[in-house]
Amino acid sequence: MIKTDIIIIGAGPTGLFAVFEAGLLKLKCHLIDALPQPGGQCSEIYPKKPIYDIPGFPEVLAGDLVKNLMEQIRPFEPGFTLGERAETIDKQSDGSFIVTTNKGTQHQAPVVVIAGGLGSFEPRKPPIANIADYEDNGVAYIIRDPEIYRGKRVVIAGGGDSALDWSIYLADIASEVALVHRRKDFRGALDSVEKVEELSKLGRINLITDAEVVGLQGEDKLDAVVIRHKDTARGEEVKEVDNFIPLFGLSPKLGPIADWGLEIEKNAIKVNNAYDYETSIPGVYAIGDVNTYPGKLKLILCGFHEAAIMCQSAYQKIFPDKKYVMKYTTVSGVSGFDGSKKEAKKEVVKSIN
Amino acid sequence: MIKTDIIIIGAGPTGLFAVFEAGLLKLKCHLIDALPQPGGQCSEIYPKKPIYDIPGFPEVLAGDLVKNLMEQIRPFEPGFTLGERAETIDKQSDGSFIVTTNKGTQHQAPVVVIAGGLGSFEPRKPPIANIADYEDNGVAYIIRDPEIYRGKRVVIAGGGDSALDWSIYLADIASEVALVHRRKDFRGALDSVEKVEELSKLGRINLITDAEVVGLQGEDKLDAVVIRHKDTARGEEVKEVDNFIPLFGLSPKLGPIADWGLEIEKNAIKVNNAYDYETSIPGVYAIGDVNTYPGKLKLILCGFHEAAIMCQSAYQKIFPDKKYVMKYTTVSGVSGFDGSKKEAKKEVVKSIN
Ligand SMILES: Cc1cc2nc3c(=O)[nH]c(=O)nc-3n(C[C@H](O)[C@H](O)[C@H](O)COP(=O)(O)OP(=O)(O)OC[C@H]3O[C@@H](n4cnc5c(N)ncnc54)[C@H](O)[C@@H]3O)c2cc1C
Ligand SMILES: Cc1cc2nc3c(=O)[nH]c(=O)nc-3n(C[C@H](O)[C@H](O)[C@H](O)COP(=O)(O)OP(=O)(O)OC[C@H]3O[C@@H](n4cnc5c(N)ncnc54)[C@H](O)[C@@H]3O)c2cc1C
Repeated sequence: MIKTDIIIIGAGPTGLFAVFEAGLLKLKCHLIDALPQPGGQCSEIYPKKPIYDIPGFPEVLAGDLVKNLMEQIRPFEPGFTLGERAETIDKQSDGSFIVTTNKGTQHQAPVVVIAGGLGSFEPRKPPIANIADYEDNGVAYIIRDPEIYRGKRVVIAGGGDSALDWSIYLADIASEVALVHRRKDFRGALDSVEKVEELSKLGRINLITDAEVVGLQGEDKLDAVVIRHKDTARGEEVKEVDNFIPLFGLSPKLGPIADWGLEIEKNAIKVNNAYDYETSIPGVYAIGDVNTYPGKLKLILCGFHEAAIMCQSAYQKIFPDKKYVMKYTTVSGVSGFDGSKKEAKKEVVKSIN
Repeated sequence: MIKTDIIIIGAGPTGLFAVFEAGLLKLKCHLIDALPQPGGQCSEIYPKKPIYDIPGFPEVLAGDLVKNLMEQIRPFEPGFTLGERAETIDKQSDGSFIVTTNKGTQHQAPVVVIAGGLGSFEPRKPPIANIADYEDNGVAYIIRDPEIYRGKRVVIAGGGDSALDWSIYLADIASEVALVHRRKDFRGALDSVEKVEELSKLGRINLITDAEVVGLQGEDKLDAVVIRHKDTARGEEVKEVDNFIPLFGLSPKLGPIADWGLEIEKNAIKVNNAYDYETSIPGVYAIGDVNTYPGKLKLILCGFHEAAIMCQSAYQKIFPDKKYVMKYTTVSGVSGFDGSKKEAKKEVVKSIN
């Protein structure tokens, strides 16, 4: 059992910054995220894209913002449970909560903060009736270890960068790679598209456009896929394969959190007011993209503010008898749990009157 | 008459960032500040001090944060009325407001945003009954042009960096410099203290500690100051001088804004809720340190959030019939009023699925 002061579900920018604000109040945090890396949407969807509306940064790559936040919270030594989805929450008789993941990891704390953004990222699955029967048995939505496809006949489906990039990569490893895409045009980077077309001419990628995988066949494991062509003259073909990998991107789903008895509105968790971002369950807060209140803006800078305000309230919950007086970091410095201490050098104090 | 979409009173970090958020909504801003430079407390009180709790900056000097914000808002070409204090606000029959400064400069806009922080910075004056009689007539609280003290007999009072630094500086210019301080110890930088002691030994600064200026004399201009020593044996002495410069720092005062008919609580402007930070006067908003609401934190990052939320409401006020859909800067880029356009390069778009 992992024990901490605050369990934070979601390691996006909001959850990460909450670690800092909690740390200033000497509260320890543990983050749970379904993704294998911290940073939420910034890391998963657009790490290389510049953001222009983070205050004080005329321009910052989303990935760099996450890197900076990780650096900023390092002194507060947050714990991480990554690659696991928070599945259940259970209130204990002592008022604390136990949050359990889909892999059974348990976390206990007096306060739970949901910073789940648009939800945990799950692969978008094609609407093929019996697809679940073949999952981990010929069908995969994420490529974790490309080596398992060595010498195999692989069909990849999709029109974005993942589909293009993995087709190129597996062309060297698999015995056969077919890339099936519903349209003629791809949405991916131009140079990836050109590379795929080149490999297709060389016969190393079997490029099947204007077509869709609509069926799966096989006894106890996948043996063949059914490909339907837009061109009705060509109709459907059955293609023998070892693996089918639909790469239609990851789509965030509020998921299990939606069943925790919290008030939900427009796929987001209602917080009664912008006073402290507490949910309808006392001791459980919701901050960042995952919450909703009148006037809510789903912006990163708003998540930061909500994290700061929420921590003051969480502190009161954990220490009902102590009165915390907010201190400026500039004046008091930052004392890490790792023994580090950041503070203004004596020389620069002189500018204060 | 300066006309704009939003008049912002206070060019601290909050007011500056509001220009950016307004700019994204194509609203133009004009800032008024009593100080001669933008940046509010960050520039005036602690430009050389590091701040540790600006999200995404493990450490940033207050002065650099202001520099970055100025760079970030540059495309939106804000107007500035600096070194003037907003004195009155008048509602016009067309619903717009006219804000007039102490120097008579007039500004008109449909929306006024008060981002006045702790108030406009005013010099702290010593409690000498007739001091006002000599203001600009031998007494000054701020040194604008040191040359006017050439060849003069000057008494400086104070124990901080301003008093120390100006004593050192004027030792080369004035015919006599006396530095009067209530205690023996100075609060300023160690090297400045040492320098003053050195100049005192050389007879170039007349260092008078454990003493206070308690009276001023002179017919139509200052002729002498009365210095009272702590040491009762020494009592009071009358010292002939041309100039008396008390440098006790600047202290922020809510000032004229307190008389605008706004609801005031704890020296701050009450905003009914954290919904849009509107004050009790429709069309007038208060953001940043200057406002108060349940749970308020006087932090820079909170002012940023309030600026973003407020702008959405201001937009509705100015364009009641238009519906603004918030756009991500990452996706839509930033189009400056100066014709500039920031946007993600094509190559980096590929990481989006
Ligand atoms: C293309 C794009 C461009 C954008 N541009 C901008 C911009 O210019 N400016 C701006 O301010 N914002 C922008 N945004 C929005 C911004 O990314 C979000 O506001 C921000 O990421 C929200 O942060 P968060 O931490 O609240 O949530 P998220 O970043 O969504 O992170 C939430 C995390 O919680 C995890 N999670 C959810 N549920 C669970 C669970 N049950 N168990 C475990 N983990 C869970 C998810 O896996 C995820 O990692 C953009 C978004 C996109 C997609
Ligand atoms: C020593 C010190 C350390 C600090 N450390 C931190 C920290 O670590 N982290 C943090 O988040 N915050 C810190 N703060 C607080 C932070 O500086 C303030 O929260 C921030 O400056 C508020 O910004 P603002 O724009 O709302 O107001 P201000 O910065 O106060 O700016 C308001 C401006 O409005 C002007 N003004 C007011 N009234 C009028 C008028 N009638 N006419 C014209 N102009 C007017 C003033 O002259 C001023 O320039 C610190 C403050 C100090 C003093």
